[in-house]
Parts: sequence; C-alpha cells; structure tokens
Amino acid sequence: MKEFDTICAISTAIGEGGIAIIRVSGDKALDIVSKIFNAKNGKDIRDMKTYTMKYGHIVDIDTKDLIDEVIISYMKGPKSFTAEDTVEINCHGGVTSTNKVLEMTIKAGARLAEPGEFTKRAFLNGRIDLSQAEAVMDLITAKTELAMKSALMQSTGSLSQKINKLREYLLNVLALIEYAVDFTEDDEEVDPAIPIRVKESLEEAYEIINKLLKGADEGRIIRDGLSLAIVGKPNVGKSSLLNVLLKEKRAIVTDIAGTTRDVIEEYINLDGIPVKIIDTAGIRDTEDIVEKIGVEKSREKINEADLVLLVLDSSRSLDKEDIEIIGTIKDKKSIILLNKIDLENKLDNTILSDFKNIIKISAKEDIGIDGLKNEIKNMFFNGKIDSESLIISNSRHKQALIRAKENCDNALIRVKNNEFLDLISIYVTAALKALGEITGSELEEDLVNKIFKEFCCGK
Amino acid sequence: MKEFDTICAISTAIGEGGIAIIRVSGDKALDIVSKIFNAKNGKDIRDMKTYTMKYGHIVDIDTKDLIDEVIISYMKGPKSFTAEDTVEINCHGGVTSTNKVLEMTIKAGARLAEPGEFTKRAFLNGRIDLSQAEAVMDLITAKTELAMKSALMQSTGSLSQKINKLREYLLNVLALIEYAVDFTEDDEEVDPAIPIRVKESLEEAYEIINKLLKGADEGRIIRDGLSLAIVGKPNVGKSSLLNVLLKEKRAIVTDIAGTTRDVIEEYINLDGIPVKIIDTAGIRDTEDIVEKIGVEKSREKINEADLVLLVLDSSRSLDKEDIEIIGTIKDKKSIILLNKIDLENKLDNTILSDFKNIIKISAKEDIGIDGLKNEIKNMFFNGKIDSESLIISNSRHKQALIRAKENCDNALIRVKNNEFLDLISIYVTAALKALGEITGSELEEDLVNKIFKEFCCGK
Repeated sequence: MKEFDTICAISTAIGEGGIAIIRVSGDKALDIVSKIFNAKNGKDIRDMKTYTMKYGHIVDIDTKDLIDEVIISYMKGPKSFTAEDTVEINCHGGVTSTNKVLEMTIKAGARLAEPGEFTKRAFLNGRIDLSQAEAVMDLITAKTELAMKSALMQSTGSLSQKINKLREYLLNVLALIEYAVDFTEDDEEVDPAIPIRVKESLEEAYEIINKLLKGADEGRIIRDGLSLAIVGKPNVGKSSLLNVLLKEKRAIVTDIAGTTRDVIEEYINLDGIPVKIIDTAGIRDTEDIVEKIGVEKSREKINEADLVLLVLDSSRSLDKEDIEIIGTIKDKKSIILLNKIDLENKLDNTILSDFKNIIKISAKEDIGIDGLKNEIKNMFFNGKIDSESLIISNSRHKQALIRAKENCDNALIRVKNNEFLDLISIYVTAALKALGEITGSELEEDLVNKIFKEFCCGK
Repeated sequence: MKEFDTICAISTAIGEGGIAIIRVSGDKALDIVSKIFNAKNGKDIRDMKTYTMKYGHIVDIDTKDLIDEVIISYMKGPKSFTAEDTVEINCHGGVTSTNKVLEMTIKAGARLAEPGEFTKRAFLNGRIDLSQAEAVMDLITAKTELAMKSALMQSTGSLSQKINKLREYLLNVLALIEYAVDFTEDDEEVDPAIPIRVKESLEEAYEIINKLLKGADEGRIIRDGLSLAIVGKPNVGKSSLLNVLLKEKRAIVTDIAGTTRDVIEEYINLDGIPVKIIDTAGIRDTEDIVEKIGVEKSREKINEADLVLLVLDSSRSLDKEDIEIIGTIKDKKSIILLNKIDLENKLDNTILSDFKNIIKISAKEDIGIDGLKNEIKNMFFNGKIDSESLIISNSRHKQALIRAKENCDNALIRVKNNEFLDLISIYVTAALKALGEITGSELEEDLVNKIFKEFCCGK
C-alpha cells in the first residue's frame, strides 16, 4: 500500500438531516480524531478495535468547548472503503454542526479531501480498479433501479473480469509471437501452427469485444437516460403529451424537495429506463405563449436526441410547416404521433409512407400512450433488457473498447496476410493498452486525476 | 421502557452523497435487518455485539438479488439515540439506492417513521425531555455557530436543569402549604414561619424565571434570526445596502448548491447572530424596475421586523414620501441611515431629532457599514452575548415561562395579603404545570404530537 496523508470530508449529502458523516481516511485517522474526541467512557480511542463504535463528544481543539455529540466508528485498513485506516464521525446533520466538526478535523491535522479522493485512494491502493471506481459514482447518480443495478454489477467487478479475460487472450498472443520470434532462425519459416493460434486467439478477443460493444449503446441509455425530443409545430399537443408522460415518473431526482424544475432535467422512468426529455421548458413555453420557434429550433433538438417524437394534429390537414419538420427527421430514430384521435381525422398520411413507426394517440384523453411506451422499449431494447447491456454503460469504456477492437481487427488482417509477426504485435500491444485504460492499469496520471475530479465531494 | 413497533427512515439529508444512513429502531430492528442482510463473513447478525459493525450486502427479500454493499452498525437499547435497539444501515448515498434499501427494510417488517419519530421515542422512552428533543431539531436547523451552541446547551439539558430546580422550589412551597393546612386546627392560626418561607421560595422562583425570560428575546433572535426590514423610497440605495450586507454572509443555507435565492430567505451572519432580511426579492425588484410600492408596503414589512433600517438619500432634500415613511417607524426599533455621504449633503435632518440612532453611510463605497453592524449588536445584545441568552430560544418555552411567572406573581400577591394558603396553592400548581409543559412532563399527547410533526424526516 502506498503512503498518503490523512484526508477528511463530509460524506453524506449536504443539507438538513438527522445525521451527517465526516469521513477521515489515512494512517493518522485515529490519531487525529483522538485529539478532538472525548469518549463517554473516558477511554483512549487509539486502542479501539476495528469495526467498533464509540459514543462521545467532539470538542474544540483549542478551547475544549463542546461542539457536538457524536458516535465514531473505526475501520482499520485494508478492510475499509479506501483500504486505509478510516474513522467516520456520525454527528448531528445540520449544516452548521457538520461544518464545525469538519473544521475541527482539519484543525486536528487532516487535509480536506478533493472530490472523489476517497474512491481514488481505493483505486490507488489497489482495492478496486478504475472501472469499479467509476461505477461507484454511477451508483450514486443512478436515476433508476436498472441504472443502479448496472452500476452495482460494474462496481463489484463484472466488467473488470471481462476485461481481464480479454487481456489474458491478448497477452497470450504476445507470448506466442515472442516465442516464435525468439526461437525462429533468420532463414527459417515460422512454425505454421503459431499464426493459426494467434489468429484464433485474436478472433476470440474480437468476438468478446464486439459483444460488449453491442450492449454499449443500451448501457449508456440505462446510465444516462434516453434523450427524447418532442417536436411539432405549435398547438399540436406537445405540452399535453409531455404532461401525460411526466405523470409516470417515479423515484427520480426532481421529486426531491429543494430541486427546481427549471434547473434539473426531467426524467421519466420507463420500466427502469430513464428517459430524459430535452428542453421541457421549451415545450411548455412554446405551447403557452406566442411561438417564434420553428423548424430551426426543432432541428437543434433533433440533433441532440436518441429518439424523436414528432407530434402531428390529426384533426387538421398537414401544412407547409408540418411537412418541413417531417423532412428534418428522415434520418433519425423517430416515432410519428398522430395526436387528437378523439377528434375527426382530417390528416392525409400519404406523405408518411416512409415511416415505420406511426402511432395514433390522444394525449388529452390518455389514449395510445402505453402503446407508445412499448414501442420505445422495442426500439431500444427489443422489448427486454439483456444483462449484457448492463456491463458497458460508460462512454469512456466504450471508446476504449472501440480502439481495442480496431487494433484487433488490424492485427487479424495482417495475420491473414501472413505479415511479419513483430508487426502484428504492435497492434496487439495497442489493443492491450486500450483495454488497460478501462481498468486503469494503463492510464496516465493526468487522465486518472481528471476522471476523479468529476466525482462528488466526500466520495 | 414502553413497547413500540419497529420504525425506519433515511436519516441523512436527501440528495447525492457518498453515504446515506437508513436508521431502524425498535425491538425487532436486528431481526428485521437480518432478513435482508448477508454478512460478508456469513455470520448471523442477530448475535452482533452492541457498538460493533458488519460489512455485507443488502439483498432483495424475495429474489435475493444484490441491492447494495453496506456496513451496518448496531446499538443495543437503552444506549442508543431512541433508547431502543437501533440498527443503522450505511449504504451508497444515491437517491435510487437509498430508497431501494429503505423499501426493503419496510418489506422486511419495519414501518416508515413519521417526521421526528426517532426523537419522539427518545422522549417517550425517558432518555431526554421535551425541551431537549426540541433542541435536537434546533441543532439541525441552526444557522450560525452561536445558534448551534445554544441548541447544544439545551440538548444536553441546561434548560431542563433550571426548570427542574424551579419545580423543586415550587413543590417545596406546595409541601409547606399542605403541611400547614393538615396540621393546623380549624380555630388555630397558621404557624407564622410558614407564610414567610412560602414567600421566600416564591420570590426565589420568580427571580429565576425573570432572569431566564430576560434572555429569551435575545435567545429567539439567536435561534430564528433577527428579522430586519430595509425600507425607504425608490433609489435611495436599498439595493446597494443589501448587497454590501450580503457580502458578509458565511456558512449559511443559501450557500448550498441546489437551493435557490428566490425561495430561501437570506441570512447574514453578524458575529454569530443570524440576521434575516425580509423580502430581499422585493428590495431588488423595487430598485430595479418601475416601483409602484409605497408607504403601504413599507408598513407591512415594518410590522414583521425586529429592527427597521430606514434608508434616506442625504444628497437630496426630504420629500413628502420620505416623511411619510419616517412617520411609520416612530414606534419601532430602528436605525436611520443617511446614505450617499460620498455626495454633497442636502438633507435637513431637523425632522429626525426624535431618533437616537442615525448613522451616516455610503452603501456604494462601503463607508459606515461596520458602524451599522456594531449598532445592531449594541441594540440587541448590549454589545456582547450573555450565555444566559442561550438558554431560552424557543417561543413555546418563553410562553410557558411567562405563564409560570404570572402565576408566581399572583401567588406572591396573595401571600403578602395573608390570604388563605389553599387559595395560593392553586396558583403554585398552575405555575408548576406551565413549567412542566417545557420539559413535557405536563403536556397533553396532542400537543406533544404537534411539536414532533414539525421535525424533519429521519430524525
């Protein structure tokens, strides 16, 4: 284990709560806390056993004034989150009291942890790899249970195992090549069995990567949400559609007191798939007040989206503006909604013959909405969510896998062309490096730091 | 200890954090958690020792699917916050994961706790009295360190001790009266020593109550904040004054990400005194855009305030509107600010001769602001904060003390008039009852429930 200084931070969410936790991690954790903690039973906590707790008071390090009643718990490294000695101070969860206890911990000798630094230490101390560390953050920000399940699988090492198996294949290829190069005289032919085994191993690796990548887009959607654009000209019912969809949301961030609708994106939970609606404010505005927004605005929204819902008013015939908007979604995953079917149909849909997905709804009367939801699930998950889709959800991992795949492909082409084995080994090494970036074994320090900076404080 | 069912709730603040805690309290706490927890070492947690922790997994009670990696800690009653057996589940602090663990705890047999129910149990189980329970809530919502210190003193029993001492005096008075009545024959005179001792005890009690009440207004200000109204006609510099005052705020609720300026009141921390500015939005609006708000609006704000700051523009002569506003603050604690002293003085202040507190400032140039702050402290705390002011901060306690004081006073008048001792005992009993309402020993269940309903969830 490496040597680090002792760090501290508030590890619970900031706000008013019954309890808050200040986490202290490092060699001196117990020593530092002992300077500001008086145990109720008078004992010195430096003798504390691991996985036990003590009740007592945090006092001002200078004046000895009482600051808070707390319970401290001790986890001796390596059996702790960071794999270092860790003390957690459970104090009263007010903003003032929590900050005061934190201030005292710093005065007693701990350094305020940077965002993600506890998890970074777990990584640097070798307890978890980089993909697991990233999954810890995904666990915290998970919007649905499915996203949480995906993060949990990754945090417990499901991705790491696959990557390590892949690396074994490729290391095996490198060993074969090295063997062939070392034991083949200059004028001799390479043992013909070797290129065959190299080819087989590479093909196997290629297949595994391919399979992982197949689930990656779905994985990203599970993690970050499917971004959905609702477009259409004014007064076709976009706002009503939004409202009927939002009725379905459960257990999501915007339900929490203190967050505001305008700031936070709105999510719908579609059987575990978080669906993020682009520019909800825009949808409401454009229906409520005078609309100046036309095709241009729709085009922007369409570009950002994984899926476009185009709303048309079936009680009127299509006009120039409708037709223009229809033109913009030709190359996009989309569903056309013929809204207002509770009214008489006046829409001629010949122009829509190119579109596969057309659904008749009445947003106002809540007709056809379940069908719409099923269609969305079918388009993205073929109706059911494969557990393979839960393994790759992070776009950094996806990009690294794509690079690994390209290098395997390049290596394979050259094996098939009977090119020099040492040339091939360059591509295999590059593929290995790409895979190592996922688990962090081959990633530069700057990049590692950059990844952890995205974490929240106290984690 | 009474028998209650087992309850659970999220006890940390809601939001994204590294860790969250689900607290489970009641006889069956360990039993319930054991149904959804698999210890890493495979052992049954029902044998856990008090004040120890265990690492493991929370699993779905039906499917046995992994839900989260957690650490649970166990505090056997009565040595716990509620004085009941308590298990705390430390899980990943995401909204989804925390809710899922809570859901499982409920499925396993715990009931979702009502707001304040953990603290209520600590009270009903006799671990703390009502004033201490209320102080726990004040600790969490404390806006400044001084407010926190006051709450902490009360939570550790400083008020309870004073009240109990007072009750002893009064119980002693009742005993004396009873003795006198029981051992005095109908035709005999009461032992003249007794009324003297009754009088002495009552006077002592009266003095203690009086002293507590003296600090009460200051205590309330420390707890809830001094409410400050900034008034004056348009363009006198109210908005600049607000900005220069808000520069000083530290460690306050509005600093937290996710809270919005418009919703939450703005506080300044004036050497530990939270100062709450009434209607900051109003101040900004009225300076920024067309102002329709005149004397009427000022009057409303003045009524709500502990202190009024009237801003006048010293670079102009007073007009009818200024004079009208000056008239509205005659009976109020106020400071008159002659603003814009960086410009030439054109204000004739003869009309202000009735006002003691007049301070020249330039809000724009930050001149005179320190003097203003000192003046505020002097007006409310005579420049320094007495630790007695920290004991009564809750207006419920203050009202009860006022009733106790009135009853002591009534009793004293009657002792001095040599009225019948049994008549006097009625007032003493009423005073005792009022004091008992503070500690909760003499409060009806409905009222107790009402008090705890104000608490936050999970506490």
